[in-house]
Amino acid sequence: MTRRSLAIVGGTVIDGNGGAPIPEGIVLIEGSRIVDVGPSTLKVPAEAKQISAIGKYVIPGLMDANVHLFFAITPDGLIRYEGRYEDVVAEAAQLSLKNGLTTVFDTWGPMRALRAVQRRIDNDEWVGSRIFLAGNIIGLGGPTSPDFLPQARTVLARSEADAIDLEWEQGAGPELLWMTPEQVRSRVRDYVGTRKPDFLKYAASGHSGAHMQYICFSAEVQRVIVEEGHAAGLTVQAHTTSPESLRMEIDAGADLLQHPDITFKAPIPEGTLRRIVDRRLPCAALFATRRYLDWMRAHASQLLKELHITRDDNDRRLVEAGAVVLLTTDSGVIPANSADHPLNGEFVGADDLPSELGDGHFRWLQAAGELGLKPMDALMAATRNIARAYKVDRDLGTLEKGKLADILILDRNPLEDPANYRSIHQIIKDGRQIDRSALPTAPLLTRSAAV
Amino acid sequence: MTRRSLAIVGGTVIDGNGGAPIPEGIVLIEGSRIVDVGPSTLKVPAEAKQISAIGKYVIPGLMDANVHLFFAITPDGLIRYEGRYEDVVAEAAQLSLKNGLTTVFDTWGPMRALRAVQRRIDNDEWVGSRIFLAGNIIGLGGPTSPDFLPQARTVLARSEADAIDLEWEQGAGPELLWMTPEQVRSRVRDYVGTRKPDFLKYAASGHSGAHMQYICFSAEVQRVIVEEGHAAGLTVQAHTTSPESLRMEIDAGADLLQHPDITFKAPIPEGTLRRIVDRRLPCAALFATRRYLDWMRAHASQLLKELHITRDDNDRRLVEAGAVVLLTTDSGVIPANSADHPLNGEFVGADDLPSELGDGHFRWLQAAGELGLKPMDALMAATRNIARAYKVDRDLGTLEKGKLADILILDRNPLEDPANYRSIHQIIKDGRQIDRSALPTAPLLTRSAAV
Amino acid sequence: MTRRSLAIVGGTVIDGNGGAPIPEGIVLIEGSRIVDVGPSTLKVPAEAKQISAIGKYVIPGLMDANVHLFFAITPDGLIRYEGRYEDVVAEAAQLSLKNGLTTVFDTWGPMRALRAVQRRIDNDEWVGSRIFLAGNIIGLGGPTSPDFLPQARTVLARSEADAIDLEWEQGAGPELLWMTPEQVRSRVRDYVGTRKPDFLKYAASGHSGAHMQYICFSAEVQRVIVEEGHAAGLTVQAHTTSPESLRMEIDAGADLLQHPDITFKAPIPEGTLRRIVDRRLPCAALFATRRYLDWMRAHASQLLKELHITRDDNDRRLVEAGAVVLLTTDSGVIPANSADHPLNGEFVGADDLPSELGDGHFRWLQAAGELGLKPMDALMAATRNIARAYKVDRDLGTLEKGKLADILILDRNPLEDPANYRSIHQIIKDGRQIDRSALPTAPLLTRSAAV
Amino acid sequence: MTRRSLAIVGGTVIDGNGGAPIPEGIVLIEGSRIVDVGPSTLKVPAEAKQISAIGKYVIPGLMDANVHLFFAITPDGLIRYEGRYEDVVAEAAQLSLKNGLTTVFDTWGPMRALRAVQRRIDNDEWVGSRIFLAGNIIGLGGPTSPDFLPQARTVLARSEADAIDLEWEQGAGPELLWMTPEQVRSRVRDYVGTRKPDFLKYAASGHSGAHMQYICFSAEVQRVIVEEGHAAGLTVQAHTTSPESLRMEIDAGADLLQHPDITFKAPIPEGTLRRIVDRRLPCAALFATRRYLDWMRAHASQLLKELHITRDDNDRRLVEAGAVVLLTTDSGVIPANSADHPLNGEFVGADDLPSELGDGHFRWLQAAGELGLKPMDALMAATRNIARAYKVDRDLGTLEKGKLADILILDRNPLEDPANYRSIHQIIKDGRQIDRSALPTAPLLTRSAAV
Repeated sequence: MTRRSLAIVGGTVIDGNGGAPIPEGIVLIEGSRIVDVGPSTLKVPAEAKQISAIGKYVIPGLMDANVHLFFAITPDGLIRYEGRYEDVVAEAAQLSLKNGLTTVFDTWGPMRALRAVQRRIDNDEWVGSRIFLAGNIIGLGGPTSPDFLPQARTVLARSEADAIDLEWEQGAGPELLWMTPEQVRSRVRDYVGTRKPDFLKYAASGHSGAHMQYICFSAEVQRVIVEEGHAAGLTVQAHTTSPESLRMEIDAGADLLQHPDITFKAPIPEGTLRRIVDRRLPCAALFATRRYLDWMRAHASQLLKELHITRDDNDRRLVEAGAVVLLTTDSGVIPANSADHPLNGEFVGADDLPSELGDGHFRWLQAAGELGLKPMDALMAATRNIARAYKVDRDLGTLEKGKLADILILDRNPLEDPANYRSIHQIIKDGRQIDRSALPTAPLLTRSAAV
Repeated sequence: MTRRSLAIVGGTVIDGNGGAPIPEGIVLIEGSRIVDVGPSTLKVPAEAKQISAIGKYVIPGLMDANVHLFFAITPDGLIRYEGRYEDVVAEAAQLSLKNGLTTVFDTWGPMRALRAVQRRIDNDEWVGSRIFLAGNIIGLGGPTSPDFLPQARTVLARSEADAIDLEWEQGAGPELLWMTPEQVRSRVRDYVGTRKPDFLKYAASGHSGAHMQYICFSAEVQRVIVEEGHAAGLTVQAHTTSPESLRMEIDAGADLLQHPDITFKAPIPEGTLRRIVDRRLPCAALFATRRYLDWMRAHASQLLKELHITRDDNDRRLVEAGAVVLLTTDSGVIPANSADHPLNGEFVGADDLPSELGDGHFRWLQAAGELGLKPMDALMAATRNIARAYKVDRDLGTLEKGKLADILILDRNPLEDPANYRSIHQIIKDGRQIDRSALPTAPLLTRSAAV
Repeated sequence: MTRRSLAIVGGTVIDGNGGAPIPEGIVLIEGSRIVDVGPSTLKVPAEAKQISAIGKYVIPGLMDANVHLFFAITPDGLIRYEGRYEDVVAEAAQLSLKNGLTTVFDTWGPMRALRAVQRRIDNDEWVGSRIFLAGNIIGLGGPTSPDFLPQARTVLARSEADAIDLEWEQGAGPELLWMTPEQVRSRVRDYVGTRKPDFLKYAASGHSGAHMQYICFSAEVQRVIVEEGHAAGLTVQAHTTSPESLRMEIDAGADLLQHPDITFKAPIPEGTLRRIVDRRLPCAALFATRRYLDWMRAHASQLLKELHITRDDNDRRLVEAGAVVLLTTDSGVIPANSADHPLNGEFVGADDLPSELGDGHFRWLQAAGELGLKPMDALMAATRNIARAYKVDRDLGTLEKGKLADILILDRNPLEDPANYRSIHQIIKDGRQIDRSALPTAPLLTRSAAV
Repeated sequence: MTRRSLAIVGGTVIDGNGGAPIPEGIVLIEGSRIVDVGPSTLKVPAEAKQISAIGKYVIPGLMDANVHLFFAITPDGLIRYEGRYEDVVAEAAQLSLKNGLTTVFDTWGPMRALRAVQRRIDNDEWVGSRIFLAGNIIGLGGPTSPDFLPQARTVLARSEADAIDLEWEQGAGPELLWMTPEQVRSRVRDYVGTRKPDFLKYAASGHSGAHMQYICFSAEVQRVIVEEGHAAGLTVQAHTTSPESLRMEIDAGADLLQHPDITFKAPIPEGTLRRIVDRRLPCAALFATRRYLDWMRAHASQLLKELHITRDDNDRRLVEAGAVVLLTTDSGVIPANSADHPLNGEFVGADDLPSELGDGHFRWLQAAGELGLKPMDALMAATRNIARAYKVDRDLGTLEKGKLADILILDRNPLEDPANYRSIHQIIKDGRQIDRSALPTAPLLTRSAAV
């Protein structure tokens, strides 16, 4: 295969570093990488295929700091897609890419299927967002465990449910909560060594709605997990849902705070907020629009309402305090049969649902504007900040010489109105132009389910 | 295709009519039908392929008056086999045939899939037991309805559960319980006319364990259903589970009593028993072995224990009174993942489970012996009695000239020991020799399920 | 005690027979009975205590054809009032009387407590409405049975729950559904002979929301129950909730139709409606106001909404067809802790709740007006019709010589506006003036519960 | 009242300090206190009433380090005894005393009722064991909370359930899990200052069977609670159920380890065991007999079986390592209606149930022997060790001059056979002879409940 050479010309280039956009700029690409970015005076090689971006906006490919590419975790989903988990993951990765996410970070899922799809995408066999994956959230169980949908176990054979959960847990499941620090160290070392996750996520607090106030691991254990991650060169983050679990995560040395804004019954304590800001800890905060919050106030259970009011207040304080924020959606594909599914969270029908994969990231950007985040900061939250937080900024996150050519061309200026992120004209990933209309190539969840 | 000609020679022929067996008898077959049965002096055409039955026993193919060829009705089964219900039905029909059941009567199932398999078998496209089917039990709901496993609706999308139930209900479901006699007449007429069931079954009483004391239809409505069935030339039977529902079924004019022995909290009243015997009403009674009853006494819930003790007492009284009994198992395929499935009836692990398709009929015959039914009567219960009760005795049920050639050759004498029904040497159905070793051709439920 | 002599003078007397009211009429009372009713020319004995009704309206005491004086049947109520059921019943009978109901018919309750209170009231030991009682609804279970609140059995000792249920069932409970007609006859005869109910009520259909389509007793059994009631000189009524159970009740010969308007998923069939009207069968129909129906449409579950829309439609058709209707509320005392009680029917907070004892009968009268029942017919529905239907019209139901002196004096004309039934000036029962302000004398349920 | 003077003479005196028993010893008492203990040569004042203990054994009154005097926490109990919680507590305190427990430590209960009974007993108004009480387990909820029997909330009005829970929580409930260390400090300080508990207990781990692996409070918060307890002169203990929560409790500085042997899915880590032994931390371990363990192996759910096998293994290791152990039962009165109560733990019918108040302490002593604890150490575990651990050994725990006269006279030698603790001849508490036959004075839970 000959080396591709592309030149995006004539567009306003916003490189993701926060500086002034380059009017009528040029981005030169060879193969999968950017070889130059500059003003209209930049020389375009003759052999380069020219892509006109006149009147348009050229930005780095968007990133999402938290997705779940396999989220068909109700019993029917788990059974219906038996043997086809890879297809389900692929569909999600294609929905993501189609909507401008060139890179996503999967923070909990069935590792073998995720890995298989990740490799196929990396090898250009399949089209889809670039995937980084954590595998399990260390200390949590799989889909049918008490941490997620234990109702499944009222209708599935126990051995089958066990086998399903193991696809997620991979030896780093809830049994770790009974262990001493050194026993956990051994398990995490083994997990890192054999499953080779791209980053680590552990449960600092419980996951289910009724367990969010509990601490999963002592401070000693949390430090052990972070140490083992760092020793293997991995970033480490935690699932936290309460003020103390958030504080413990920070004390343990986490690199990235995943939904620090979920503190549910109490706000982020002022002291903790100060440390977050002062230490410039990246905050993957679950921004949501006013419209979503209004829906919650009107329709949600007391628990969810309270959680979201606190979250929103935390988000506002994080923005005001100047915290480093990352676009994060905690999203999954919403299947066609969700509307009347009894195990769907009550929120599935909500207006502006943030956790709908393929659209949630646009809603996040909308919410960021509503919360007062500056347009350029929002753009960086969706690009460079994530790349840096996950320590993949050598290759990703900005339009700079030497980086991978993950690029969006937008019809309208995203700095003027966050809704303009939706005006995708073209997506380039790894230096290749993506045919959005073909995605997803084989829809499973996103078409109507039929008996 | 040239016409097949077979001669089974040298075996003891028990023709199903109750007379003395023919030693060293001969059964001549041309095409799908028996053309002659007689002693060793009978002339065997030269072109006939001879099958030696020397030292063996030749009997009519066995029949089961009540099976459910599709019984994967837990939510995981319903979802796992989406789009493959026909394969599931075929597997069951093959398990049946492999074990000597040349004809089965399916009394509740997904009609379209059952019909499709029935046709393929009738057309010699697929191998399997001959199927007669009722479709729905008129007045009951589908698998996820309160009549069966409503727990399914806690984990399945409502619209999907509705669609599944409709596959069973076919317009003759629980909504009929709200109707007047004439409204029910119209519905049944439509059901008979458009779904073309082979026989009718209706719910005289409720189905779930908590509803067995209730009457589903008034006497007037029951008469209407029987009238409509008879007008269309169909036999009619009812689901009954209590003394009064049994009496009402008889009053309504049912042709065949399906599990009249299930009267749960009270025995069959003496007067009802007398009418059953005097009118020679065919009783498809759920005989079970002592071993099964012992298991129930030791392990079952109070409800099940009580039900089975009453049932067994009824069975003994029916046999003693000389009632016409039919082999019936109410059986389905027990899937490989049943052992630890929370929705399996508690009885699934029972010793001598009568409702295990493929084996239950042997257990029925064993139980018949234990209950004191004479060996020849037991054989007729499994053959001629069923054919007559279902009014298909023009073609089926005995080894007689003109009947379809459904024949078993057994290694040992079934009149000596009911266990000898298991000693199947050869099965001939429709005049064809069946390759038992190839069945089931594509096992689904009967192999281990894996994620 | 000397014989009391009262004269109510100067009021408009509406005697309950449907004729023109007597302006400035006089009602003379001696002891517990009315000795004369007539125009102002009637001679008032000198010794009579005169009660001025000038400008007011004198009507027969109101009656309710269906109440439950003990309705604290949630587990906490059953336990909290252990040993005090009589006090609970007395409170209800006093709330009734205070609001103008001089006679109530209790159709399901704990017989011993009801009987004890009935006797105390009859003996003038306690003040309260006159009570007639059925005891159990033959064929139904007690409060913790599947017919009512089986959830209780998840939190109560089994033996205690059993003992509670027996207080209601009294040997005529759900076990009758397993019996033959003659067995039921024996049980009912025993129940009538030993428990001495004032009238009989039996379950023609199931009671819980999920069982309303089922028939409890065959036609034969229903006839047996009616025969036994009639043989003992008792009126008989049935609980029906579907078109067929209503028809069967009528066929069985019931004297009074209790909530024939509850047919839930289907309207009363036209033929049945005709028979009801033609045979002048008394219909204790659960009229409810537009406001209640609106609340149901807005707030209720699909099941309840459907039930009430059908009910209301039936009510309108009954009125239009000229059926004989009776005031009936199926009411109980709503305890002070109902607002946030998880076992309260969803309807407890409804506007214009018809089943609130003490107020529901006023709402019924309001609804009767909205449904187009003529004012005088409504008054008779609440008085004479009930007395006749229950065959106690020798003593009750009208203001006539020889009848018991159960009388209301209203400030405003009830024929002008049904709201005027609330304008109670004075209540006389058994010839005694009731001190309404003292009732209930010892409130239990109607004051706030405290730990 | 004149000062009582008693002399127990002639018995073998075992003073609880571990030294050789005094044969034919004398214990002199004046008022509520022991004034001398010595050999037969000790001079007995003339005015002293002599109690002969010839051939008998004189030991300190027994103590239980963990009881729940109010344990009628099923919904029916909570409601049935509304307004009578003090009577329930008194019955338990009398059952305890009757069986030789002169002092008990109540570690979770309704504080106001417990306090009221404690005061009445202290003031000699009522008879019963001496009570020390913690009130709530800081961080846990009341009886109807998820920590205990949330099923109650399916049948009780929410406001009533809330009010019940507050009786236990007293401002130190589950809301503390959402707080920062300083917020918890403020709450605990307030709790100590206003509720004046006798000692503190907090939840280091979750309570319900499904939450035992979770940590309730961070290390910082645990230290704060211990600091506040110590600042107020109170001993502090924690509820722990896992290896890490046990370690955290020790690190936090707890004075007494409550059930350190409950580590459920994993044994006490060796390092933790060493620290416990080396620091002589008092271990209130839930010893149980072989018979109980056998019952558990045969009948219990997987969860309970596992918990008890681990517990027993821990107990054996604690004894072998020479840990300081305390008699503890975590017991409550088992009501008469327990046998068929659906909310009774599955263990209620177990052989040798350790948690049956009034008998459990005898079983503990039996188990101590089986586990190899030396007889004298077992006696001290039930007396002096507890007094020291709770820092009440100035007054309690041994037979020594100046201590309160809490004394048992046994017929047989407890050092020969632990069953001999049951041979209670006489109980003296506070210098008074207890009439055991009169206890409990007004049985509520311990007689049969009737409707």
